[in-house]
Amino acid sequence: MENLLNEAALLAARRNKQAIGQKEIEEAMVKVTMGPEKKSRVRTDKDKKLVSYHEAGHAVVSKFLPTQDQVHEISIIPRGMAGGYTMYSPTEDKSFISKTEMLENIVSLLGGRASEALVLDDISTGASNDIERATKIAKAMVTKYGMSDRIGSRDFAQEKSYSEETAGIIDEEIKKIIDWAYAKASSILREHRDKLDQVANVLIEKEKITGEEFNSIFEQE
Amino acid sequence: MENLLNEAALLAARRNKQAIGQKEIEEAMVKVTMGPEKKSRVRTDKDKKLVSYHEAGHAVVSKFLPTQDQVHEISIIPRGMAGGYTMYSPTEDKSFISKTEMLENIVSLLGGRASEALVLDDISTGASNDIERATKIAKAMVTKYGMSDRIGSRDFAQEKSYSEETAGIIDEEIKKIIDWAYAKASSILREHRDKLDQVANVLIEKEKITGEEFNSIFEQE
Amino acid sequence: MENLLNEAALLAARRNKQAIGQKEIEEAMVKVTMGPEKKSRVRTDKDKKLVSYHEAGHAVVSKFLPTQDQVHEISIIPRGMAGGYTMYSPTEDKSFISKTEMLENIVSLLGGRASEALVLDDISTGASNDIERATKIAKAMVTKYGMSDRIGSRDFAQEKSYSEETAGIIDEEIKKIIDWAYAKASSILREHRDKLDQVANVLIEKEKITGEEFNSIFEQE
Amino acid sequence: MENLLNEAALLAARRNKQAIGQKEIEEAMVKVTMGPEKKSRVRTDKDKKLVSYHEAGHAVVSKFLPTQDQVHEISIIPRGMAGGYTMYSPTEDKSFISKTEMLENIVSLLGGRASEALVLDDISTGASNDIERATKIAKAMVTKYGMSDRIGSRDFAQEKSYSEETAGIIDEEIKKIIDWAYAKASSILREHRDKLDQVANVLIEKEKITGEEFNSIFEQE
Amino acid sequence: MENLLNEAALLAARRNKQAIGQKEIEEAMVKVTMGPEKKSRVRTDKDKKLVSYHEAGHAVVSKFLPTQDQVHEISIIPRGMAGGYTMYSPTEDKSFISKTEMLENIVSLLGGRASEALVLDDISTGASNDIERATKIAKAMVTKYGMSDRIGSRDFAQEKSYSEETAGIIDEEIKKIIDWAYAKASSILREHRDKLDQVANVLIEKEKITGEEFNSIFEQE
Amino acid sequence: MENLLNEAALLAARRNKQAIGQKEIEEAMVKVTMGPEKKSRVRTDKDKKLVSYHEAGHAVVSKFLPTQDQVHEISIIPRGMAGGYTMYSPTEDKSFISKTEMLENIVSLLGGRASEALVLDDISTGASNDIERATKIAKAMVTKYGMSDRIGSRDFAQEKSYSEETAGIIDEEIKKIIDWAYAKASSILREHRDKLDQVANVLIEKEKITGEEFNSIFEQE
Repeated sequence: MENLLNEAALLAARRNKQAIGQKEIEEAMVKVTMGPEKKSRVRTDKDKKLVSYHEAGHAVVSKFLPTQDQVHEISIIPRGMAGGYTMYSPTEDKSFISKTEMLENIVSLLGGRASEALVLDDISTGASNDIERATKIAKAMVTKYGMSDRIGSRDFAQEKSYSEETAGIIDEEIKKIIDWAYAKASSILREHRDKLDQVANVLIEKEKITGEEFNSIFEQE
Repeated sequence: MENLLNEAALLAARRNKQAIGQKEIEEAMVKVTMGPEKKSRVRTDKDKKLVSYHEAGHAVVSKFLPTQDQVHEISIIPRGMAGGYTMYSPTEDKSFISKTEMLENIVSLLGGRASEALVLDDISTGASNDIERATKIAKAMVTKYGMSDRIGSRDFAQEKSYSEETAGIIDEEIKKIIDWAYAKASSILREHRDKLDQVANVLIEKEKITGEEFNSIFEQE
Repeated sequence: MENLLNEAALLAARRNKQAIGQKEIEEAMVKVTMGPEKKSRVRTDKDKKLVSYHEAGHAVVSKFLPTQDQVHEISIIPRGMAGGYTMYSPTEDKSFISKTEMLENIVSLLGGRASEALVLDDISTGASNDIERATKIAKAMVTKYGMSDRIGSRDFAQEKSYSEETAGIIDEEIKKIIDWAYAKASSILREHRDKLDQVANVLIEKEKITGEEFNSIFEQE
Repeated sequence: MENLLNEAALLAARRNKQAIGQKEIEEAMVKVTMGPEKKSRVRTDKDKKLVSYHEAGHAVVSKFLPTQDQVHEISIIPRGMAGGYTMYSPTEDKSFISKTEMLENIVSLLGGRASEALVLDDISTGASNDIERATKIAKAMVTKYGMSDRIGSRDFAQEKSYSEETAGIIDEEIKKIIDWAYAKASSILREHRDKLDQVANVLIEKEKITGEEFNSIFEQE
Repeated sequence: MENLLNEAALLAARRNKQAIGQKEIEEAMVKVTMGPEKKSRVRTDKDKKLVSYHEAGHAVVSKFLPTQDQVHEISIIPRGMAGGYTMYSPTEDKSFISKTEMLENIVSLLGGRASEALVLDDISTGASNDIERATKIAKAMVTKYGMSDRIGSRDFAQEKSYSEETAGIIDEEIKKIIDWAYAKASSILREHRDKLDQVANVLIEKEKITGEEFNSIFEQE
Repeated sequence: MENLLNEAALLAARRNKQAIGQKEIEEAMVKVTMGPEKKSRVRTDKDKKLVSYHEAGHAVVSKFLPTQDQVHEISIIPRGMAGGYTMYSPTEDKSFISKTEMLENIVSLLGGRASEALVLDDISTGASNDIERATKIAKAMVTKYGMSDRIGSRDFAQEKSYSEETAGIIDEEIKKIIDWAYAKASSILREHRDKLDQVANVLIEKEKITGEEFNSIFEQE
């Protein structure tokens, strides 16, 4: 937190501002959580296209999922370990997370990989972190939140061992969720391929898109 | 304990009372075990409805289970990690807990999830702790208390390993208990849907119900 | 040991005795191993009936098993964690324990649960410790003492791993012993239901029975 | 070693001897490895008969196995944890132990249990240590010394894991050795039942037999 | 890094150079990562042939894989644990690695073993490190990067346990990748056997080939 | 190393030599790695025959395997834990070990056991260390060096877990290698039984054979 405020203060100072503004806070937050931008890194066109379609995939898919937060910013400027990122503006404060919301979150996470597979003739390691998070959510739905009818209202997250048959059913239920979500992400992108191309092209050209610019692409017709 | 008395003393002082009363003790106990109320948190109507039906589900189901304790208070004001809670008044001091009591306790725990599934078009993570506790009780019945005829009077809680077939039977017996209990909870709520709606509506409106208010709903006809 | 003598000395002192007698030693031993009596605890009739039939079950079953020790005292006054207890007078000093003795010990341990199931319309957690001990004996018979013909004279207690098939046979052999012993306990109690009721009724009324009082019930006709 | 010599010196002193003799060394060795004799312990006739037939079983079986050492002394006087013991005089110094010798050692170890089962109408925990040792030898033959044709010249003693199928074959091969050895022990005792009874009866009467007394029983005809 | 510069400085000094050049940096890097050359070691012709074909196998296979880096130097002079090595010049800076690139990397790693098997009448332990690396890449593709259609976009790298069936599918998918890559490497070498022989012969004779010499072999026709 | 030179110096001194010779170095090396000779130990003829045929088995089998080193010395004088030993003179310095060499090494290791089984009517624990080493080599061939066609170029030595089916295939492949090698060793010894008897007889008589004496046996005809 202190680190965050120092960063924001530095940014304000560099811009000759008297006070830290909303803009400085936001930039400082991105910098602290993801590392500084690496603008200097030379990139091939192929790499820029790959990252742009990956991030555009996340953003376009989430646009068509009612429970997912609004896109705040998309960037293909590398930061830390990440080749790019899509930021969302959190909406309301909730006591519980619903099953629908969890499912749509997985769809949104798999949007990056689905976009690569749809547009490029290859897939990449860029989806590694998305796959890890999607798997964790799907697993929790099945083993902790009782959200698989076949498993029922039972908690396996605390248990050290269960039968091989149960392990098999848990695996099948997690696979069912992941496969459904990936198919859903692919289907949204195929249906809105024109928007995906537009978002990706802006990213290739300008490296960043704000939430408003992103939304305006969907308001044209 | 000391912490509890300090809290009670503080409450009494704030109310200009000379001595700590029953009311102060109770309030202090809730505060110490669940954390202070978070009244300031802004909540959507959807979230309040979800929590209200979840808690009303626990309370209404337990009302129709002879071995379960009386409802003392229901609240949807968030405290600590919990979005709401249902408190019961403990009744008699017992040497042993009976199989019927354990089964009905599981039914009561699954009342929250059953209510969400019945009334709302979604289920949520709110049942996480209920599912964990229900699983622990069902597992103990089967592996520690010899309460499954198929397993018999054998203790597996102390054993490090047993055969895959035995592991499969244990899993099936636990599932049988959980599934029966969830079906029982759902059936009680379907039969008394009007009472469930009444309790939930009072909670949405007033955020809290005392045991007497709760019981009076069931005395009307 | 020192603790035991202090307790006995205290009891003798309270009774204005010059020396510690047999009676004081015995009382001190029970107190040291099981904790002091909790006479003050208020109990429901249902709870007293449950504990009385549970303890009477142990005692009546052991009466009809030739290898089991004589009943010394039965009590339903809670001590420590236990809701009641049945004490036996150890007989002779033996080098080895026979298979028959081990089997009958399991029958006697399961007499409490068998009595609950026969007389009351419910079973309880009161058999938890009995089930744990019965399982340990049955397991040792099969895996350490070579007392299952199907397993033969082989030791599995020292081995870290064996095949799944062997694990399955071990489980089946343990289950066979436990199930036989439980059926045997139930059958003894059904045959001597009148004695079981008499012992339980005395316990409900007087809370304690000495070995002589217990044996005299079986001498009436 | 020092402990052993002290014991021998003490024995010699008590007997008013000037020097430690062969007899003192032997007695000291038994005392040091198995604990002092417990002559005072009161024993039932049943217990003496059980221990006598158990020890006589070991001795008589080993008498008919060419690779086994000569009986040096048999005793039913309890020492330490043991209810009795059979001592052998080690013969020659060998570089390697042969498969035949290992098999016959297992037969001899199971002679105690086989004798109990043949003569008495019960078996006991007295074979516990014999079973443990027999299992260890049989397991080493199969998993370390390549003495099972089905397993072949392969070492499993060093390996942490192998397939379930291999685990099953290992278990079957060990069981085959143990079962063969137990049948062999039983068959020797049935054939020489008269000698078994003679040895056991001397033990019941005199509590100890020297190797010469034991051998003389087999020279009568 | 410091170590690297010291080595480069030493090399420059030995050559009476005023400054460290590109050549000195490169040589220092090889020395620091793989250990110093062991020129003195006497080698049989058979051993030299084996190592030459192994290294030539890596290099020739990678030449026909579009995503693989250019060969920079091949050597059969032993260094540290390695009997020889093939160095590549890294090309562009990439955010993500594509599936095609990972597959072709495995093909290239298995080129050494494929060459031994094709040309010599034996295979050797020389492929040990290649096999280890190829297995790691194939495993990550299946369990971490979601690059097997049959497994889907699921992460198993973080999970402690999964069902036996899933474990079997993961194993089959890894085997499929490895077997495909090995067949691909063999097929490239069979098709370009003349080039493989030329590269190997130069290595046997001169012990080292630079990238340019290597490439010139493929430009002849 | 220091220990080795001290031993060699001592030997030279005892022999009134001015300098340490080749002979002293060799003797010191054997003493340091295997412990001093135990000439005093009294041995039965049966034991000497067993050890002689065991060691002769190793030596004769290795004589007919092209990749195995020449026999340097055979001895049946016990040293440390070993009842005897066969020493080889290492030949050339190699970068890699070939599959053929590993297979023949296993054949040579199993020659001792094969000789016992062929000539004597029993087998012994003397092959324990040979079996352990043979198993380790066979396992590495299958799981680390990709030398089983059925497993392919995959590394399992680094992996913590794999499927039960894969574990079964690995076990079968290791068994195939061991069984083939044992059959090969037996077949060599059956074909050259006369040489085996000659070598064993010299050992029984003289306790030691040098490499030249050993080789001369094969040059007679």
